[in-house]
Amino acid sequence: MEVVTTKITLKVPESLNDGILLKNLYLSCDPYMRNRMAKPDRPSYVDSFTPGKPIIGYGVSKVLDSRNPNFKTVWGLTGWEEYSLITSPQLFFKINHTDVPLSYYTGILGMRGVTAYAGFYEVGAPKKGECVFVSAAFGAVGQLVGQLAKLTGCYVVGSAGSKEKVDLLKNKFGFDEAFNYKEEEDLDAALRRCFPEGIDIYFENVGGKMLDAVLLNMRLHNRIAVCGMISQYNLQQSEGVHNLFCLISKRIRMEGFLAFDFYHLYPKYLDWILPHIKEGKVAYVEDVTEGLESAPSALIGLFSGRNVGKQIVVIARQ
Amino acid sequence: MEVVTTKITLKVPESLNDGILLKNLYLSCDPYMRNRMAKPDRPSYVDSFTPGKPIIGYGVSKVLDSRNPNFKTVWGLTGWEEYSLITSPQLFFKINHTDVPLSYYTGILGMRGVTAYAGFYEVGAPKKGECVFVSAAFGAVGQLVGQLAKLTGCYVVGSAGSKEKVDLLKNKFGFDEAFNYKEEEDLDAALRRCFPEGIDIYFENVGGKMLDAVLLNMRLHNRIAVCGMISQYNLQQSEGVHNLFCLISKRIRMEGFLAFDFYHLYPKYLDWILPHIKEGKVAYVEDVTEGLESAPSALIGLFSGRNVGKQIVVIARQ
Repeated sequence: MEVVTTKITLKVPESLNDGILLKNLYLSCDPYMRNRMAKPDRPSYVDSFTPGKPIIGYGVSKVLDSRNPNFKTVWGLTGWEEYSLITSPQLFFKINHTDVPLSYYTGILGMRGVTAYAGFYEVGAPKKGECVFVSAAFGAVGQLVGQLAKLTGCYVVGSAGSKEKVDLLKNKFGFDEAFNYKEEEDLDAALRRCFPEGIDIYFENVGGKMLDAVLLNMRLHNRIAVCGMISQYNLQQSEGVHNLFCLISKRIRMEGFLAFDFYHLYPKYLDWILPHIKEGKVAYVEDVTEGLESAPSALIGLFSGRNVGKQIVVIARQ
Repeated sequence: MEVVTTKITLKVPESLNDGILLKNLYLSCDPYMRNRMAKPDRPSYVDSFTPGKPIIGYGVSKVLDSRNPNFKTVWGLTGWEEYSLITSPQLFFKINHTDVPLSYYTGILGMRGVTAYAGFYEVGAPKKGECVFVSAAFGAVGQLVGQLAKLTGCYVVGSAGSKEKVDLLKNKFGFDEAFNYKEEEDLDAALRRCFPEGIDIYFENVGGKMLDAVLLNMRLHNRIAVCGMISQYNLQQSEGVHNLFCLISKRIRMEGFLAFDFYHLYPKYLDWILPHIKEGKVAYVEDVTEGLESAPSALIGLFSGRNVGKQIVVIARQ
């Protein structure tokens, strides 16, 4: 990754009737972006980045020029650059509620919010009183899933990679229990300690060894909502998972999902989450990095868990 | 395993009001029995065998003595022995239809039939025209699943471990395509050849490398019905499965199941399958071994695929 300076006219060209010119304010660093940095040998769920072109990611942007005067602030897939000329504005979401931090639309009020909401309710199908485990629980998705679980009346445990995060999970987000996976010699034993009667729902964000330990601790007839496997994305070959026989012996449903299959739920989700945020019933922690120059290291930091909360990059505040 | 001779009185003791005395006719060799030959460190879905006691397995038996005169021929979990005194006869199924080979009740008309039927229809949820892959396709369950898929109007491919089995899959069971996994250097390439547009339903019987190759070849929004993982049961540690990220990128539901959760479907299944067998619309191949002395090697043979079709052991024919 390198920062390149070029010139752009801050106007939509006459020929681009639908075009919009964006000033990018906040950029989102998301684990799935790692998967766009490879050339898969067959079609993937996301296109690879084009070397030499700006990285693409979710962001919040101000519309500087558009034929549609109602288009003022938007979120969607934009370029990692100060200004972006967009030719398919229909892929962007208009931001109507601006009495919350605009940066939230890179996360809890955007794609990551839908991920947590749809993954937990639609794939996880929780019931009151169930036992929920969330890995990478301090990430953008994890922190919200934990709070959704508590609002649903579940017992919820999260794993994270530092004492600071573990403390915040319990004290700020209301997790019933949390542990630092880096400090546990035996993940299976840690899960047994936290779930003496087993796990009903696992919200999977990390993959690898954690998944193996979870499989041993699942209860019968339950489910694993597979959202991500961040521990695997930087490996040459992903770690093998050995305990899949538990899927049979415990009759487990393990199901992967992507937020964009659930975008139809976004308006409903937004109506629900906005008052929760405004009334302080749902907390949200961002890790804010300033400037496009810092964006590469912010993105890379995700994979060692350097971020504390949702990682964003500020390019401009207005 | 050893054969032991003891004496038994062929009468239910006075004290055992509910007891039945069985003469065992046909015994079933099933892969899951391997899992009863271990001492798991936590509760399992099946109890471990007790060393020194007869092995337990599905069988077809004649009732020699019982307080209930209607109880004549039954199938259920019996001992690997000539005669068994059963104290919980309510766990046995009464055989009413005897105009089919009685041995079929160890397989297609018994637990393995329910496995194939429930696994394919309830977990797999097939639709006409879909592409189905069945591994261990010549096994007791696989051969039936393939025929169910054809009856449903699916395109179906099976894998097996010999040329003989592959030929029979295509010529006797009507699979559209089949391949010998032992002869394929690259399972991924074999699946790509058979499924140029990908797999909609994978009926999983083997696990390990085959599962990894299948994950690469699944189509979007589809499902894996996990019935067994026979390639793994004799390994010290099961092979790692590396391509689970496909669950997310392709939004796959992978679900394990056991027949005994679906026994309520057994009467419905029997009504459906009996005429199909009698009219020759569903074929069934058994590998028949004679005598209790041959039972251990018949059971062990499953794990190298030595059996051609459903492996049974005949103790007596009437």
